[in-house]
Amino acid sequence: MHYKLAFIGFGNVARSLARLLLRKQNVLKTKYDITFSVTGIATGRHGFAANPAGLDLLGCIEKVETGQSISPESRIPISDSLSVIQNSSADVMFENSPVNTATGQPAIDHVRAALEAGMHVSTANKGTVVHGYRELSALAKSKNKKFYFESTVLGGAPVFSVFRNAFPAADLLSFQGVLNSTTNIILSRMERGETFDQAVKYCQSIGIAETDPTNDVDGWDAAIKVAALVTVLMDTPFTPQQVDRKGIREITPEMIAQAKVEGRRYKLVCSAERVGSQIKARVAPELLPPSSPLYAMQDSTSGLSFCTDVLGDYSIMESEREGMTPGPEPTAYGLFADFINLVS
Amino acid sequence: MHYKLAFIGFGNVARSLARLLLRKQNVLKTKYDITFSVTGIATGRHGFAANPAGLDLLGCIEKVETGQSISPESRIPISDSLSVIQNSSADVMFENSPVNTATGQPAIDHVRAALEAGMHVSTANKGTVVHGYRELSALAKSKNKKFYFESTVLGGAPVFSVFRNAFPAADLLSFQGVLNSTTNIILSRMERGETFDQAVKYCQSIGIAETDPTNDVDGWDAAIKVAALVTVLMDTPFTPQQVDRKGIREITPEMIAQAKVEGRRYKLVCSAERVGSQIKARVAPELLPPSSPLYAMQDSTSGLSFCTDVLGDYSIMESEREGMTPGPEPTAYGLFADFINLVS
Repeated sequence: MHYKLAFIGFGNVARSLARLLLRKQNVLKTKYDITFSVTGIATGRHGFAANPAGLDLLGCIEKVETGQSISPESRIPISDSLSVIQNSSADVMFENSPVNTATGQPAIDHVRAALEAGMHVSTANKGTVVHGYRELSALAKSKNKKFYFESTVLGGAPVFSVFRNAFPAADLLSFQGVLNSTTNIILSRMERGETFDQAVKYCQSIGIAETDPTNDVDGWDAAIKVAALVTVLMDTPFTPQQVDRKGIREITPEMIAQAKVEGRRYKLVCSAERVGSQIKARVAPELLPPSSPLYAMQDSTSGLSFCTDVLGDYSIMESEREGMTPGPEPTAYGLFADFINLVS
Repeated sequence: MHYKLAFIGFGNVARSLARLLLRKQNVLKTKYDITFSVTGIATGRHGFAANPAGLDLLGCIEKVETGQSISPESRIPISDSLSVIQNSSADVMFENSPVNTATGQPAIDHVRAALEAGMHVSTANKGTVVHGYRELSALAKSKNKKFYFESTVLGGAPVFSVFRNAFPAADLLSFQGVLNSTTNIILSRMERGETFDQAVKYCQSIGIAETDPTNDVDGWDAAIKVAALVTVLMDTPFTPQQVDRKGIREITPEMIAQAKVEGRRYKLVCSAERVGSQIKARVAPELLPPSSPLYAMQDSTSGLSFCTDVLGDYSIMESEREGMTPGPEPTAYGLFADFINLVS
């Protein structure tokens, strides 16, 4: 089967996905009988292009990376993302426009337009899940298409597909996890003797924390991920505002040193549990013993532990390989895996 | 869709599966549109029954558990497992006869007969994977059926389905894990001050170690699981004999005490890696630091860490919930999950 692909948003993650698709062309063909062409690309600052006969993907990557516009590649002149969707004749749309956690826009409009046009959609954009999951899933179902978002919570490491396929007919009773890298790196570095400010500066220097680190440090990013997990895995619409949220600002070097003496450590724990017909969700620093599956999740390692009605506690964890530099590749793989699962 | 099920082997795991199927009847119907009847049961010591019109499942469970024969339930008199398969008209066969790790028999014959008769097969029997994976998978494929075995390595916790669905088109470069509970409990208890003999006796008292613990202590069970993982996930036929194997007998209380002082601990580590076109696989005690994902796998906790070409290290881990008593339920869930995945 041949699939036409549209990229809405063509930043680091999307271009890494494009390269991964090219690198895996052979296995896609031999193992999954999948071939593809890219028929639409919308960039933030380097133009818009659509051509159902196929764009020159490597050429477009190079243009963007050397600061040129891709618009001359377009079959007809277009000037916005929705036009790319409409003129691409794509079978699958990858939504990777900038995340807006307050409204999910304009990503939700992009996803809606693609589903309406009969495309499957994969996105790394948390905003679409938190603000649009119910509507977009229902729309996808009505069109006999799928709306997947593996890369929204654990940076591309499998979470949603694990549940979808490996836990059929199981009830998720509760989960707890470490889901925000910035705060986890800060706490890990404070344990090794840095001050809060030093650790924040380090995170800013490697590009994972904003100039204003509020979104991470006060637990908003973690709360958004908890809301996405509750919404999807517990099938209950949930907003970040409903998450009982406390950040890591009150954790002092003295508290961390004392915990270390006791063989324990602080983590910004993300958790949710069913209590009767309600769901209680929480983001807060917790003091963990070594027996906790979250204790070993240091620095940029993140993960989740699931409590279901059918097994003991099942945990998943993603850590950087030694010597690896953090990059967009894992997130790109989540989108790539979505693609294969969407069409298989 | 209605599915007829045959149970070959009707011990603790199979009866736990039968109870789980009954408990989950509603969600099977509403979420997956699956209904089922049991049309064949072969027991070790309580007879054989087949009836394409359906057996009284609860009645058969009760008969076996009160020491009665189920043979009077059969539509026609039969006296062996292959006859149950042939006379059940089943769509799915669950193979749970006693494991024979030396040959995989008679389970392999059962699986072959079921596939030949056009049934899907799910088994918790490691022997079928180690001795029959290639043949049985090819046979299943030729019949447009599936041969699944989720419960063979991690006691029912998802491993194979995680790879099948959550890691499409990924190359598994290496893995390492803790896969044998008996040795892990022994090492954990020695760390808390017991002798090797005391810890072995404890494992025997809770029913997880044999009177002769050689199979666990010398690493054979671990080697069998490594061979199964290499065979399936690295797509390379591999025998337990090819695994470079060393058990835990040489680990002394003094070594464990010294490791504890250094903040490290011994684990019987199961590992495999691609080296050129070869695969090197190993079972041996290793001294691990707290930063290893395996360090936290104490007592009956087991798990695996995967190194692929597409992500950092991805680990999965299954631990008993506090207060839970070890039982056949997780293994039964692996078979149950296979069933849904086989037919969906």
